[in-house]
Amino acid sequence: MEDKKATLVVHSGDFDKIMSAFILGNGFLSMGFSVTIFFTFWGLNALKIKGFNKAPLSRMNFFGLGRYIIKKKMKKYNVASLNDLAVNLKKLGGKIIACTMTMELMGIREEDLRTDLVDEYGTVGKYCYESKDADVALFI
Amino acid sequence: MEDKKATLVVHSGDFDKIMSAFILGNGFLSMGFSVTIFFTFWGLNALKIKGFNKAPLSRMNFFGLGRYIIKKKMKKYNVASLNDLAVNLKKLGGKIIACTMTMELMGIREEDLRTDLVDEYGTVGKYCYESKDADVALFI
Amino acid sequence: MEDKKATLVVHSGDFDKIMSAFILGNGFLSMGFSVTIFFTFWGLNALKIKGFNKAPLSRMNFFGLGRYIIKKKMKKYNVASLNDLAVNLKKLGGKIIACTMTMELMGIREEDLRTDLVDEYGTVGKYCYESKDADVALFI
Repeated sequence: MEDKKATLVVHSGDFDKIMSAFILGNGFLSMGFSVTIFFTFWGLNALKIKGFNKAPLSRMNFFGLGRYIIKKKMKKYNVASLNDLAVNLKKLGGKIIACTMTMELMGIREEDLRTDLVDEYGTVGKYCYESKDADVALFI
Repeated sequence: MEDKKATLVVHSGDFDKIMSAFILGNGFLSMGFSVTIFFTFWGLNALKIKGFNKAPLSRMNFFGLGRYIIKKKMKKYNVASLNDLAVNLKKLGGKIIACTMTMELMGIREEDLRTDLVDEYGTVGKYCYESKDADVALFI
Repeated sequence: MEDKKATLVVHSGDFDKIMSAFILGNGFLSMGFSVTIFFTFWGLNALKIKGFNKAPLSRMNFFGLGRYIIKKKMKKYNVASLNDLAVNLKKLGGKIIACTMTMELMGIREEDLRTDLVDEYGTVGKYCYESKDADVALFI
């Protein structure tokens, strides 16, 4: 598999969707894909300092699985935390873009974000450009 | 970039997701892609006359950003309104398909929809056919 | 159209999103695509025995369309039930993968799932591998 590429848009700020995004990103990286993730709208909140700790579940009380119970189970079953997943994604060469339009709309400054995770700040045009030769593109 | 194509399914009726769909659609069109958007389920409500005004936020009261505050900020930061984005998408050659199954299920008639925006009425088969040679396909 | 392939991740457990997933899956199969659907997180609940009956709507009381009203309308307009759609997907050769990480996290055992629907149990790696040569990949 040569030159395969996956680009993800993360619009949702839900804990479980952010988790899916990072798990998929790491999965594609492990298979030799290059991976770019564009964080926009609620998704950008996850990249704030302590953002991973504040992300809500998309089905908060559903099936009795609250955020803390899920985190506890993740630990028990050796599922990596959001932070571990994000750090691993970066180690494997994944690229993270923060949406500048969202930053303006929500009043988020560069210093509010995890600069150890964000590679670039850009508009949707940057995402579209990254996706022009993508083999897999997902909206999360 | 020649003959690139993006096809979007808009299932969600959330204001912010509709906005993401149109922003991405315009982004891809600006890069020379052809773009087809298939509106289905709750997404189809957005294409109703005044539908853009009624779309709820996916995280209504989250982070203190209600629908009106977002609209106000959009104006302040020169972010185009949903209507401007939709009209621009059409000007750039974007195609919009309304899901006929959804119309039957929800009792939506052609005259309930923005006929200036909708190009075709069709089933999921039409979307799949449009997507058979798509370079980017997103479910929103 | 030869050797076209669609791979879907179903993260959401919402009735209407599961429905979209199966309708799209059947649509692509009907057009000669091969189709693989990876059920993860809340989506996996749908594959539980009686899971189709318990899936909530993503907009429960929105527009007055509750789950039962939608089901009634689906019957009236000859829209196939979730179960019919799933059984048809299998008949047409669609492949269903259950996410093993989700099974561990949520305490779901193989015998809790519809073994007539699930073809394989696997991690995200299996999904990424399936997607490496996909023409369409959607996250639902």
